[in-house]
Order: sequence, then C-alpha cells, then structure tokens
Amino acid sequence: MDFRSDNVGVVSPEMLEAISSANADSAAPYGGDHWSREVNIRYSELFETDVEVFAVPTGTAANALCLATLSPPWGAIFCHATAHAHTSECGATEHFSGGAKLVLVAGADGKMDPSALEAALDGSGVGQAHRSQAAAVTVTQATEWGTVYQLAELDVLCGIALSCGLAMHMDGARLANAIVAVGCTPAEMSWRRGIDILSFGITKNGGMLCDAIVVFRSDLATHLRYRLRRSGYGWSKMRFASAQLLAYVRDDLWLNSARRANALAMRLASGLAAQGSVRIVMPVEANEIFLELPEGAPAKLEANGILVQDRGAGMARLVCRWDGSEAEVDEAVSALHRVAVSSE
Amino acid sequence: MDFRSDNVGVVSPEMLEAISSANADSAAPYGGDHWSREVNIRYSELFETDVEVFAVPTGTAANALCLATLSPPWGAIFCHATAHAHTSECGATEHFSGGAKLVLVAGADGKMDPSALEAALDGSGVGQAHRSQAAAVTVTQATEWGTVYQLAELDVLCGIALSCGLAMHMDGARLANAIVAVGCTPAEMSWRRGIDILSFGITKNGGMLCDAIVVFRSDLATHLRYRLRRSGYGWSKMRFASAQLLAYVRDDLWLNSARRANALAMRLASGLAAQGSVRIVMPVEANEIFLELPEGAPAKLEANGILVQDRGAGMARLVCRWDGSEAEVDEAVSALHRVAVSSE
Amino acid sequence: MDFRSDNVGVVSPEMLEAISSANADSAAPYGGDHWSREVNIRYSELFETDVEVFAVPTGTAANALCLATLSPPWGAIFCHATAHAHTSECGATEHFSGGAKLVLVAGADGKMDPSALEAALDGSGVGQAHRSQAAAVTVTQATEWGTVYQLAELDVLCGIALSCGLAMHMDGARLANAIVAVGCTPAEMSWRRGIDILSFGITKNGGMLCDAIVVFRSDLATHLRYRLRRSGYGWSKMRFASAQLLAYVRDDLWLNSARRANALAMRLASGLAAQGSVRIVMPVEANEIFLELPEGAPAKLEANGILVQDRGAGMARLVCRWDGSEAEVDEAVSALHRVAVSSE
Amino acid sequence: MDFRSDNVGVVSPEMLEAISSANADSAAPYGGDHWSREVNIRYSELFETDVEVFAVPTGTAANALCLATLSPPWGAIFCHATAHAHTSECGATEHFSGGAKLVLVAGADGKMDPSALEAALDGSGVGQAHRSQAAAVTVTQATEWGTVYQLAELDVLCGIALSCGLAMHMDGARLANAIVAVGCTPAEMSWRRGIDILSFGITKNGGMLCDAIVVFRSDLATHLRYRLRRSGYGWSKMRFASAQLLAYVRDDLWLNSARRANALAMRLASGLAAQGSVRIVMPVEANEIFLELPEGAPAKLEANGILVQDRGAGMARLVCRWDGSEAEVDEAVSALHRVAVSSE
Repeated sequence: MDFRSDNVGVVSPEMLEAISSANADSAAPYGGDHWSREVNIRYSELFETDVEVFAVPTGTAANALCLATLSPPWGAIFCHATAHAHTSECGATEHFSGGAKLVLVAGADGKMDPSALEAALDGSGVGQAHRSQAAAVTVTQATEWGTVYQLAELDVLCGIALSCGLAMHMDGARLANAIVAVGCTPAEMSWRRGIDILSFGITKNGGMLCDAIVVFRSDLATHLRYRLRRSGYGWSKMRFASAQLLAYVRDDLWLNSARRANALAMRLASGLAAQGSVRIVMPVEANEIFLELPEGAPAKLEANGILVQDRGAGMARLVCRWDGSEAEVDEAVSALHRVAVSSE
Repeated sequence: MDFRSDNVGVVSPEMLEAISSANADSAAPYGGDHWSREVNIRYSELFETDVEVFAVPTGTAANALCLATLSPPWGAIFCHATAHAHTSECGATEHFSGGAKLVLVAGADGKMDPSALEAALDGSGVGQAHRSQAAAVTVTQATEWGTVYQLAELDVLCGIALSCGLAMHMDGARLANAIVAVGCTPAEMSWRRGIDILSFGITKNGGMLCDAIVVFRSDLATHLRYRLRRSGYGWSKMRFASAQLLAYVRDDLWLNSARRANALAMRLASGLAAQGSVRIVMPVEANEIFLELPEGAPAKLEANGILVQDRGAGMARLVCRWDGSEAEVDEAVSALHRVAVSSE
Repeated sequence: MDFRSDNVGVVSPEMLEAISSANADSAAPYGGDHWSREVNIRYSELFETDVEVFAVPTGTAANALCLATLSPPWGAIFCHATAHAHTSECGATEHFSGGAKLVLVAGADGKMDPSALEAALDGSGVGQAHRSQAAAVTVTQATEWGTVYQLAELDVLCGIALSCGLAMHMDGARLANAIVAVGCTPAEMSWRRGIDILSFGITKNGGMLCDAIVVFRSDLATHLRYRLRRSGYGWSKMRFASAQLLAYVRDDLWLNSARRANALAMRLASGLAAQGSVRIVMPVEANEIFLELPEGAPAKLEANGILVQDRGAGMARLVCRWDGSEAEVDEAVSALHRVAVSSE
Repeated sequence: MDFRSDNVGVVSPEMLEAISSANADSAAPYGGDHWSREVNIRYSELFETDVEVFAVPTGTAANALCLATLSPPWGAIFCHATAHAHTSECGATEHFSGGAKLVLVAGADGKMDPSALEAALDGSGVGQAHRSQAAAVTVTQATEWGTVYQLAELDVLCGIALSCGLAMHMDGARLANAIVAVGCTPAEMSWRRGIDILSFGITKNGGMLCDAIVVFRSDLATHLRYRLRRSGYGWSKMRFASAQLLAYVRDDLWLNSARRANALAMRLASGLAAQGSVRIVMPVEANEIFLELPEGAPAKLEANGILVQDRGAGMARLVCRWDGSEAEVDEAVSALHRVAVSSE
C-alpha cells in the first residue's frame, strides 16, 4: 500500500482508453489534430471563458513556463516559502525566466499570509534599479501542506497583486482536489478570483506523462508556443496528450477522482483521530495527511507493507489517491496506531 | 494517405501494450521503478557498453540537453546547415546551453563535408577570447535529407572532432532507419565511431510522447539529472516512458519497424523511377523521398487523398512509416505520376 | 607606429580633462549627478530628438544589450556575416538575449545586401513555432570592412525591416567616422533613417573605459536600467563616464577627431595608390585600409616599426587614428612599398 | 558633507595620475599592454601566491562572474540575507550563472551564523535531483552592516564549506577597510582562510569605473576570459584599468586610504557616544555607522548640509571616506546631536 505520493498511482482507464482511441489512424502533428483543437473548446466551456491550453510534460514545466511568461528576467516572483517552484524544481523558474528571483513569503498552514505578502512587496524596491522588480505572485492550490485556500482568501491575495500591478499564477498540481474541497466551479477557483495563468495538473490525479497550462489572458498566450518549442515541449504526437486532457474532464472524471482521493484522506484522518495515538499536524482539507511519527516508524510501517513519505524531524506524509481503497486506508490506520503505540 | 512526416503515425501496439502492463499497480516515482532501472541494463546490452539512458519528451529536448552538456555557454557547436537543431527547434540549443553558438557547415546530400568542417574549425579562433570556443560537433543520422552516413564517413568526422578535442553528438531522430540502411549494430553506429552522446529517437518510429538521451561517457551523465529536472523533463510517472523504451527494442521491434519504413520508401522511389515523370532529387537511403513537384501539385495530390510536405521552390517530401502499406505507396506513385504528367 | 586598431590609441586630452574636472568634489552615485543628467539633454540636442543615453563599459556591452532589448529569447536577429556582434563578442548577444539567433546575411564590401536580407526574411518562417522569429536587423556603420553605408542604402534596409515589423539597431563603434565620411548630421545618420537604438562608440575615437547606448524610442528605454544593473554595468561613479560623453561631443571634438583619422586613411590609401605596389582590397571610406600583403610581410613591417593587423590569407588591416600623424602615415606608405617590392 | 556612501567620493590623485601616465603613447589592446601584465605580477606579490587578476567595471560584475564561475546553473549559493549579491544587484548572479539559486542564511551583525549555514546545508538536499545543488558560499568583508569578520570566524565558515566540498567567494567591496580593521595581510584575509575567488573592490576606496576579480585557484581562471568577453567587460583600452589597479596598491595607498576612512568612522562613533543622544545600532568596525534617527531627521540633516542614507524604519547609515575630513565628521556629530535632541 503506497501512500508516498499521488504520483505513484496508476493511469485512469478512461485516459488510457482515450489514448488508444486516438491511435486508430495517422493525424496531423504538433497539435494540428482535432483532439488538440477540441481541447481549447472544451476547456473554454469548462472554465466559462475563452482559454488557451498548452499541454506540457510535467508540473515543473507548467510552473516554470507560466512564471517565465509573467516575469521578465529582472523580475521578482512572490511565493510561499514551501512552494514547489522554489523547493522542488531544481531552479526551473530561474532557468526559464532568465534569472528571475523567487521571493519567499511566510504563512501558516502552507498558505501565503496576506500581510506578509504586503510587507514583502512594500520592501521590494519598486522602481529601484538595484532590485529585481515585483512581477508576479504564485499560489499553490491545494497547498504543499495539503490545505486549501478558500475563495475569500484567494480574493485577498489577488487583490494585493492587482493593486500592485502584479500578475497571478496558480500552481494547480492538485487543483481538482481543491475544487471539490471548496465546492466551487473551475471558473470560481481561477480567473474569477484574478488568476491570469494556471498550471493545470493531471498527472497526480490519473494522467500520464503530461500536465497543462491554462491561459486566461490571451496576451499571455501569444508567445507561449515559441517558448514551448524551444523548451523541448512541443510534442509532434500531441494528440496523445490532448486526448488525455479531454478524457480527464469528460463526465467529471477529474472531480470524481479527486473527490474519492479526498474522501479517503478524510477517512484516514478520522480513523487516526478516533485512535488518538498519532498527532495530525496540519488540517486535512484535500488528499494529504501530515502527521508526527516517531523516529524509525516509517521503516516499521514499510515492514508492514505501508509506504509513507518520511519528511524528517519526526514528520511523515501520507497521500491518498483515486485508485486507493477504503480497506487500504483502514489497514494504514491500524498499522499507524500499532507503530505509534509500540514506540511510546 | 499521409506522407507528410513519420510523426503523423500511430503508436506501435507493442508499446501501447507495454504502457498498459506498467499500469497494473502503483510504482515508485521519478524513475525509481523497475522499468526505469531495467532500461539502463537493457540498453547497455543493446549498445554493448555501459550506457545511461534518460527519457525526455521530444527530440528537441534530447538535442538541446545533449548539446548543452557538451558545450559551455561560450562554446561553438558545428552542425550541418540543415541540422534540425539549427533550423527547427526555435533556438532550443541556444536556450539550454546559455547562449552557445551553432556554426553552420556545408556539405552535399545533407551530410557535413569533412573539409568544410576542417575549414570551419581552422577559422574558429581557438583560444581567442572574442570567439565562441569550438566545443562539439553534431551529426544527424539519418540526415535531414533522408541520406545516411556510412560508417567510414562518420569515422572521418569523428576523427576531426577528436583531433581538435571536441565532443561528438549524434541526432538519431531516425537512428533505426540509418542502422538498418547501413546494416550495422547500434554500437557500430555510435560509440565505436566516437559518438559521446546520442539523441535516441523513438517518436518517429512508433513511440508516444517520449524520446531519449543515451550517454556513452559516464562523466557526461553526472549532471544530466539536474538539467533534466530543471528543464521540466523529470516525469514522476517515468515508468510509462521507460516501458516504451523497453518495448521499443524488444525482439528488434525498432529495427523491424524501420526496415519496413525504409522498404516502403525504396518501393516508392523505384515506382517513380519506373514511371520517369517525377525527378527524385536526393538519394533515397532511409525512409524519406525528396522530389521535384510542379507548383500546385501538392494541392492536387491532397485532392487525391495523398498528403505530402510542400517544401517550397518546387520541392516536396514524402516520408514512409512502419504503419504504411504497399498499397498506399503504389497509389502514391500513380497519383504522383498523374499529377506530374498533367502539369507538363 | 601602431596601425593595428583604433583601440590602441590614447585618450583625448579634452576627455581626460573632463574627468579631472568631475573629480573636484563628491557627487550623487549611479547617475544621480549633474553630468549624467546633462548627457541626456546634450545628446537630445545633438540628435535633434529626445533620446536616452546609457553609458556602458564596451561596444560589446552596447551591442548585446541593444539586441537583447530588441529581440525576445526566441527571436532572430539579422546581421552581416562579418558583424562584430557575430564574429568577435564570444556569444554576448546570445548570452544577454537569452538565446536569440544571429542570422547571417551576405553582401559585398561589408554591407548587407538588401535582396539577401529580403531572401533571409522570406525564408525565416514567420509564425512557425519551430523557427526563431524575426525580431531585428543590425547594421554596422562604418562597416567591419571600413566602408560606409550611404543614407539611401540605410533607407532601403530600414524600409525592409519596417515593412516586416522588425526593429533596427546600428552598431556605431565608428559612427563618427561614418558621419564625417557621409557629411550628414547625427540625426540623419540614425533615427531619421529608421534606427531605433544605437551603439554609440567613443572608445575607438578617444574615449576611455566607456561607450554608450542611445535610445530613440522611449519604450525601449523603460527596462534598460534594470538590464544594465543586472549586467554589472551600473557604475556608482557614473559621472566619470558621463563627463567623457559630454566632452566627446563638445565643440565637435568627436567629429574633428574622426575627420582627422579618416584624412590620414585617405592619405595612406593615396600614397599606396601612387606607389602601385600594394593592392587595396576594399574601398577606403572611413579610417580603415584593407590590403593584400605577401606572407611574412607583417613581420617585416614590424621589424621596421610598423604594426599592422595580420588578417591571414595574405591580407592585412591598417587603422588610422585621430592621434596619428601624417609623418607616420608617410613612413608606413614607404615601408609597405619596400616590403611589397622586396617580396615580389 | 556627503555621508551617503563611499561611492560618492572622488578618485585618488595617485590613480588619476596613473591614468595620465598610461596615456603617453599607444599600447596593445585587450590587456596585451605592460600595465596589465604587471598587475598579475604585482598582485601575486601582494597576496603572496600566484593569482590571476581580471579588471571588471563594477563590484556587481565581479560578484556575478565569481559566483557564476563557482556554481553551475543548477547550483545553490549560500549568502547572508543582507548580501549585496542578493539585495542590490537586480538578479545579476541569477543572470550570469544561468539561474543558480541564492540561499539566505541568517546571522547577527551582518555576519553569517555558522550553525545557520550548517543547518541550511543539511537541509539542502545534496544529490536530490529536485533541489538546486549546494555549490558555493559567499561572505562579504567588511559586511553590509559595517562589521568585520575576524580571521577565526572566516576559518569556521570556510571549514564548513570545505567539509561539504563547496567553493568560497569573498565580496571584498570594502576589503581594504576590513584588512586594516583586523590588522592582517591580504593573504591572511583571503586564500589562507580558504577563499577561492575574490571580488576586489577599488571603486569605494578611490578608484574609477573599475573593480577586479582576484583568482586564487588557477582552474577557476581558465574560462574567465571567455566569460568576461561575452559579458561585455573586455575593455580594449584595458591599460587604464590596470594602471589604476597598480596605483591602488602602490606604497600602501589602498590601506592608507581605508585606514583614514575607518579612523573617521571611529571618530564619528566616539563623538556620538560622548553626546549620548543618538543610538548606534551596530558595532562600528570599518567605515560605516548605522544609527537610529527619528522620522524626518534625514531631511533636517540635509537642511544642515549633512547627507546621510535613510534606511527607513527609523534607521540611517553614514559612511566615512578617505577623502573626508575630521572637521566634517565633527560637524556631523554636532548636527546629529542637535537633530536628535530637537526631535525628542
């Protein structure tokens, strides 16, 4: 039973089936096929506004190109101190932007604190040539700590960005999990809040070898295809990414998958709360659970067939997936309890 | 009938099947899975030497990272004037290398002329601070004009590079077609000639959403995984690329597919030669045919259900694929003949 | 007697004096001083339009920042095959632009051929994502071969650029020599032709440790100060560059110096023509003379105290400077004649 | 009386004289002159080891090229949170390194705390592909807060870097001030501690339009001249920078100038301490004084002819220079006292 991450999961049968369907005959390359054209239409319906969608290989690719689009090389991009773009992408944003600077903003529960953002912006030296110039803000939804920004919280952050003339990016690697957690529409979660460009994750929720960029401002889309090509993202057989993107949102597959993953996480959290032996350190709002575990516990769990992500310093992460099961979750609860009690 | 390119083709059933097989259960992310580990083992057998293989999304990704690995930002990379890395990747090599310079070398039939390479190197200003410094040579095999370097030809170019201390890259977007054309082993086509790093193409020959880099010198591999990650190529669900790479070379699938594509191209060329109405402008040695076509002919062919690539200036390209058929080829010969005769 | 280049020359006494005058007292740093403010005013008068001037350390710095300002990373910049930015700056343009591509255009006498430029633009693939996108044209005035574009020639090239929506850059490392050769005003030589941004050279004509960028379109100036700072060009003691820029154009110093250098070159050319023993290979229009010299001749000249620049392949360059003398030139003519005759 | 910074000061007469002396005749360009050759010899004596010296236009240029030399694009560079390279160079390090990441380390009095450095390194993810890889540490001497690392403090930081295989850079924009404060030799302050490469500042201590890089490890120097050229730093009239570098260290000019600046700062600090009305917030160890000033006080001081740098939040900086005077300092003390008392 693998709770290390949602990227260990399998590909949704619906998406594999879509790939096979797209393989019946030859098709125009580089997005000239009808699947790729349909993506823009379908996603524009989904987001209730005209969007342009660009498939990319990974969430890192999406984040880095989005931020390079929003920031000049001399720009500063404000992110939470735990943002994936800062901690886990080996400098991709710095690379693709030509040397923009990520400025870290604090905030509890993985969420950017509005007053910390304001303070960072106040001290950023707008118009001073020796300072990288404030260009964009990026938020992760759901956050790196498994929490979810409420719409009103996004409004505050987007309002600050707007008042300073900054663009807004959302890293939606787990966007579906956030949308079902909040219970809103994709439009309400994105451009209606003020998001200009979105990293739209599908890999962690049943996709394979691709994620996407969704652009809400057409001026930002103009040059993206050149950036994509020179970044090595321009698949000739684009239809196999586009077919996935279509299947992902057909009949609410993405939301149903996320709902299932979130529900499993809630079951896990409830189970642990009922046992009382393991402390959960962060509100469980999407599909991730962060908890305290004694030194050595992850190894003991592994011996019991339960894989978790050891975060060091006595903390571990468990991630639930759409392809997990209640039985697995219940077994994990039992195993966690046993290990915790035996370590006391 | 689509002869525009080999990237319009379908995915090999064997490779789709391999993807499905890899989807049975969860697996460690980022190449920690057994498929990914097996790739290095299997490809080391295939190439008869220890290699490291890195899956990447596209051939452009492979070329750009290979060349960025071989050249410092102040380096010069010598390529044929028609090299894909120069003409068709929107500056990817310049981007990933941090501004290296592609120096164009002439040569007939899409092949780099050894004396032109020597002249270019002689005039390159080694050790002069105002000149980008000669760092690498890249050759495309099969070439952009559908011809194939013979092993002795590669020896000459590699010898020149070696004598100047330069590294050698091969863009093998159509490597399989070249190998079966020459009738040699993968080792003989690559490191035994002096190739240090290889763009190993699978997309044009039945793959989906991935190509690969094969590294023959372990010192070049050391930093590639950091470059890959910050380039946005680090798939979490790497197993679906690795499973393809394994299936691609299992039971000689890649060579059999390429052999079939090449044979169709020869049939097309022979058919046209027998008709005598269409001039083929380049030796047909792999799976591409370049021919003269009167103005307006591509549109007429399209009206007959035959798609070709209009190259402008009265020239067109037809590419044969493993998933093409003799009947299609024969129909193309007839249509080409009719259109050519009717245009006289 | 040093004819290798104009950058071996001394600094004009007027400019040294200006530096000393600027050293009387402390002054605001980073261009906040009155010399720096006066530069914009004085150069706006000189160019008969509002300009913004940015001092930079070298001509390479000026060229690379100008071109990075005109071209996005995915841009193509069209230059003559002998352009300094391409041949002699170790990839500076590629570096500062984030990987733009220099596209070489042929043309006799060091001048870009208009029809070659048109052909290059026609084949550049505007709007095709796999091609670097045409962004700018750069011309060198006087050219790398010591010739000078006439105003009508610039009109043709600027007209082509304008019709394609491209920006125009002029590398004016020897602008003063060209202006006096043509006998026009600075305005007529630049923005009145359609030049958007100018590398304004002073080093080769009596300056010290600085050159400048002159911006004719205010939209291009907006971000230059950030680029300058992050490029390491933002001198804190800017006044010592600004004082030079002021002295350089005061009382026509720059034009008088250039006129003197050009006159010496004409004297050298006339002297050689009168002797008839040395073939001059390029029209002498500014301060450079290119001539045929037998193998070994440069060394013999050096033994006679005459330093020339050996260009290889039986060619040499002599450059005349404002701080040269008629006597030196006459001695050079004699020595060249002796060496040429003795080599026959 | 200008106490805003040391970069508002005049150029030392000795350095201006050296420039004039270098202007007597033409000389080989690009550092082929004898002044430039002598710099390496003289600085090797000064530092008691073989060094290579590269003149650059600014301290930002020096820092950015040094760090780009020490760190690959995927590297992490550890610096104090107030490091000039992070706060005041508009992303120059990110630009020249191709996107390396500056990691901020805390520490009192502007000095990097060794345990904070160790903690940052421990958490930096060595060998993890999703993390920028620890490559170098940079320290500023004297620090951004006018304090000075003692030799033993540098030993601790260099020891940590060495134990992790990291390279060490010193930003010596005020190196002379630090050396005289500590009372050691240049060698003791640099390579004998473990410094690999040094930004050697002269601008703030009497220089004009140039600073320098001093390289202690010859392997680091190999490619610097290519980096310099493509960065636009390769002055053709290099002798005017080299002549300054020679004059700067002749007869201990640099140390005498720094000693005088430091003494003035001590006099200022003592004077304020005697008055008791203004709180100095940082130990005064070199030539900078940081003090608390009531809101509005900087403007009142300016009305009294005393210019200070307002740092916001009730703090101001005064910098003393070699070209300042005791009388100025005494007047500043009086004015500060008056303003402070009147604001109570």
